[in-house]
Amino acid sequence: MSPIITTPAPPYYAVIFTSLRDPDDRGYSKMADRMVKRVQQQEGFLGFESAREELGITVSYWRDLSSIERWKADLEHREAQKKGKEFWYRAYTIRIAKVEREYAL
Amino acid sequence: MSPIITTPAPPYYAVIFTSLRDPDDRGYSKMADRMVKRVQQQEGFLGFESAREELGITVSYWRDLSSIERWKADLEHREAQKKGKEFWYRAYTIRIAKVEREYAL
Repeated sequence: MSPIITTPAPPYYAVIFTSLRDPDDRGYSKMADRMVKRVQQQEGFLGFESAREELGITVSYWRDLSSIERWKADLEHREAQKKGKEFWYRAYTIRIAKVEREYAL
Repeated sequence: MSPIITTPAPPYYAVIFTSLRDPDDRGYSKMADRMVKRVQQQEGFLGFESAREELGITVSYWRDLSSIERWKADLEHREAQKKGKEFWYRAYTIRIAKVEREYAL
């Protein structure tokens, strides 16, 4: 289960990844587990929140844009991105956004 | 079902609402349906994407900050916010973020 995470005082960055999966796994679950472990070692990674019904939404949080760029360029992650485009996702949208305010209950 | 929506070229705003529901409905579903209808009439509203497992994530998209402020101050929505705090959510975090880049498959 993905809990609500605690993030530092804004500003920081969010990557909003919205996707429709292909129903076949074709190695997706194994790679997803690897990427979850790997991203946690990335400098500037603050955490992520994720939920999927038919639509999947994963929001990852980052200290700054350069941390996001480094993760995007990570070699293992690039391999995952390539397979995502070829096999795992029917469609996705990625939005990079600067978090300006935050409040919680 | 909530599809991946089409948004204009950045910049625009995202409200990332991450929540843990109380298991009892207590009027939640009825109010949620009303709010979904009502938000679509708001000036500056661009659409939303939503998914829930144990964690729920709803991301709504807006033309600018003042549209978000008007929706936050809407009287019926304020009533829903109040009940959300009292009855429907065990915890939530709201993050307001400026979308700077977007790309899609």
